[in-house]
Amino acid sequence: MSTETLPLKARPGRALPDVDDRPRMPLGFRAGAVAAGIKASGRRDLGVLATTGQPAAVAATFTTNRLSAAPVRLSQAHLAASGGWAGAVLTASGSANAATGPEGDADQLALAEALAAAVGVPPHQTLALATGVIGTRLPVDRIRAPIADLVAAGLSTGDDALAALAEQLCTTDTHPKWASVRLELPAPDGSSRTVTVAGIAKGVGMIHPRMATMLALVLTDATVDPPTLHGLLAPAVERTWNQLTVDGDTSTNDTVLLLASGAAGTVPVQAGTEAADRLGAAIEVVARSLARQQAADGEGATTLITCQVSEAPDDATARAVARAVVGSSLVKAAVHGRDPNWGRIAAAVGNAEVGGQPVPIDVARLAIAICGVPVFEGCPLSFDRSALSKLMAAPEVVVAVELGLGTGWGEAFGCDLSEGYVVENSVYTT
Amino acid sequence: MSTETLPLKARPGRALPDVDDRPRMPLGFRAGAVAAGIKASGRRDLGVLATTGQPAAVAATFTTNRLSAAPVRLSQAHLAASGGWAGAVLTASGSANAATGPEGDADQLALAEALAAAVGVPPHQTLALATGVIGTRLPVDRIRAPIADLVAAGLSTGDDALAALAEQLCTTDTHPKWASVRLELPAPDGSSRTVTVAGIAKGVGMIHPRMATMLALVLTDATVDPPTLHGLLAPAVERTWNQLTVDGDTSTNDTVLLLASGAAGTVPVQAGTEAADRLGAAIEVVARSLARQQAADGEGATTLITCQVSEAPDDATARAVARAVVGSSLVKAAVHGRDPNWGRIAAAVGNAEVGGQPVPIDVARLAIAICGVPVFEGCPLSFDRSALSKLMAAPEVVVAVELGLGTGWGEAFGCDLSEGYVVENSVYTT
Repeated sequence: MSTETLPLKARPGRALPDVDDRPRMPLGFRAGAVAAGIKASGRRDLGVLATTGQPAAVAATFTTNRLSAAPVRLSQAHLAASGGWAGAVLTASGSANAATGPEGDADQLALAEALAAAVGVPPHQTLALATGVIGTRLPVDRIRAPIADLVAAGLSTGDDALAALAEQLCTTDTHPKWASVRLELPAPDGSSRTVTVAGIAKGVGMIHPRMATMLALVLTDATVDPPTLHGLLAPAVERTWNQLTVDGDTSTNDTVLLLASGAAGTVPVQAGTEAADRLGAAIEVVARSLARQQAADGEGATTLITCQVSEAPDDATARAVARAVVGSSLVKAAVHGRDPNWGRIAAAVGNAEVGGQPVPIDVARLAIAICGVPVFEGCPLSFDRSALSKLMAAPEVVVAVELGLGTGWGEAFGCDLSEGYVVENSVYTT
Repeated sequence: MSTETLPLKARPGRALPDVDDRPRMPLGFRAGAVAAGIKASGRRDLGVLATTGQPAAVAATFTTNRLSAAPVRLSQAHLAASGGWAGAVLTASGSANAATGPEGDADQLALAEALAAAVGVPPHQTLALATGVIGTRLPVDRIRAPIADLVAAGLSTGDDALAALAEQLCTTDTHPKWASVRLELPAPDGSSRTVTVAGIAKGVGMIHPRMATMLALVLTDATVDPPTLHGLLAPAVERTWNQLTVDGDTSTNDTVLLLASGAAGTVPVQAGTEAADRLGAAIEVVARSLARQQAADGEGATTLITCQVSEAPDDATARAVARAVVGSSLVKAAVHGRDPNWGRIAAAVGNAEVGGQPVPIDVARLAIAICGVPVFEGCPLSFDRSALSKLMAAPEVVVAVELGLGTGWGEAFGCDLSEGYVVENSVYTT
């Protein structure tokens, strides 16, 4: 997936590194993927990521859906037991293992034990990701042997192995999603070491993350302890994946895992230092790229919609307004038809809520632009409707909203609502 | 619009009168509608409702969208000034007069003055409803004369006049929406009088009411003062229109007006009496019928989706869960494809929030049925997928959810998400 078509800048004045369109495996990790028969299509549907040495430090965020899936509950329990360390991750696509009752939890635990035995770590140092149809069980007996075989055949530390893992995660994705950043961090001997931050993600439908997101795995070879790692992950997720919506439905399986192997040999990154700032920015830029790739590849989507909100009372309000705009079915349908129907954007701004309360809006100060064309500044502006409609045929439509109420800034990512979304989702299980 | 295809019972054990599929004009009101050139199609787009004698008592609920339309703000201001009394209502379709700046407010006031002069009441005893494209102004100069002409030609007290008003309100509605109930209430002489409660409504898109709804007008000839009337309207709206969603977008123009003329000559209805209970039930059943008609006629809709939630901790939680289910794009798309993909219903239940907090869910006690077929009871049930898919081809799909956590009950109304919705909404203004 090329990110060159997604050049839009994040917050003005905020220094973020450029992201690379490459699946680069950081040092200290190995991976592999096979077709284990979960998907009827015969495509690869089972993956293993493991560390090459010691367990990696882990930070994670999970779905807030009250019906969280078995892999989510297993990962949460294992991270609590391990104190935030993991030696292996099992990834499965084709079944979400959600709403599968106690049997679903037993299935997931059996697979964790199989993975632990194959890799040689305690079961509580394993994590799990799964995606697919809710309510279908994983075919445990069919999967157990492929896990052992995959590890026995030798996992690879190459970039190709990370790409294979990204491909294996896909369900209705039209392409795998990856991004990476390289930066220099201090080494113990006073020199510096090149550190890699790389992420892969899947997700096209049932995307409306709250506190977490669809499946994403971010790896780094920097040396970071679990609490510091969590401190870097949480704000990045808040500004990126929690600002992504495809259809307003928060999945039962949302999970972001961030693993740090320490294999690059850097000085341990301490919270509050310049190294932490730079590593955090690298994590955020990878997360933002993946979230934008997920939005652009939303089910049936033809257009990435980015809403950037400025002059809000605070950042949280700006993010809420941006989410309301990209989440509006009517805005999404209008963008699909290249219809500069800005009234729907205004209505969506007026519906935004933050923390259950309506956001403050002063209509007289409100300004809206679509693809750089001002359409509303306290009252309707006249503009060339036909010319703007042509601009909206671009792969990305940027909606800029100024509230005139402060310095808060935020953005959100979504996609148009197409006939293709309806067709794809009306015949998913039958 | 026949309501015979919508026989689903409200809360078990709760006595509500049967609703009639007729637009019956209550005593004390007169109405008329004309084509004034707001709509390009040349269809009727301007209507006047007036009392035949004294002003009517009024209860009203309005949109919570922060960009409320000029007609909403005018009605709110006039009700505050009059203490809840009105002699005339101006209805316009083809322009929402929302996000039109100070000019939009001036337009609406000019029309109120024209209406007041024509009908012979003070301007602050007039109200307004408008629906159509956001951001377009009303053609005031074109409308002023038709208002005077319409009133001068003589408004009608017949049922046909109420039907004409319902037709005039329509935009993309495929048919007008009305419902009525007759009941007996005590007269001052000890006998009883027949009282009519009749409602009309429009609404097909941008429907996701919060504290109010799309445009609806409910009339009665019972004698009720404004505060008592409000006490009857508010709970009825909470259980009906606030449980309606078509696309998750709360309109800038949502308004419900309930007018009581007192022309039936009943004893004034006092809050807390048996007469108030019966009148309140009549209002609620009319509201429920209209809300269900609106859901069934949602843009592009082919199927009414009703979710009834029982055994919730309380009614508010039940309503929140029901709304989450009928509001899920994925559930809506699955119903469109007659796909019994109950996992999406479970995920929507798990996403429900009440007052900004997630609702309590115990998966082990959760039960789900689609069209009467149990599909989940703590764990997935086996069922005949093909037979259930055939059942889902009915005009209404009922989803029943039991939470197993109390005695709370609630329902919500929505519609399927079709290719037609996308087509209709991607080419609305261009």
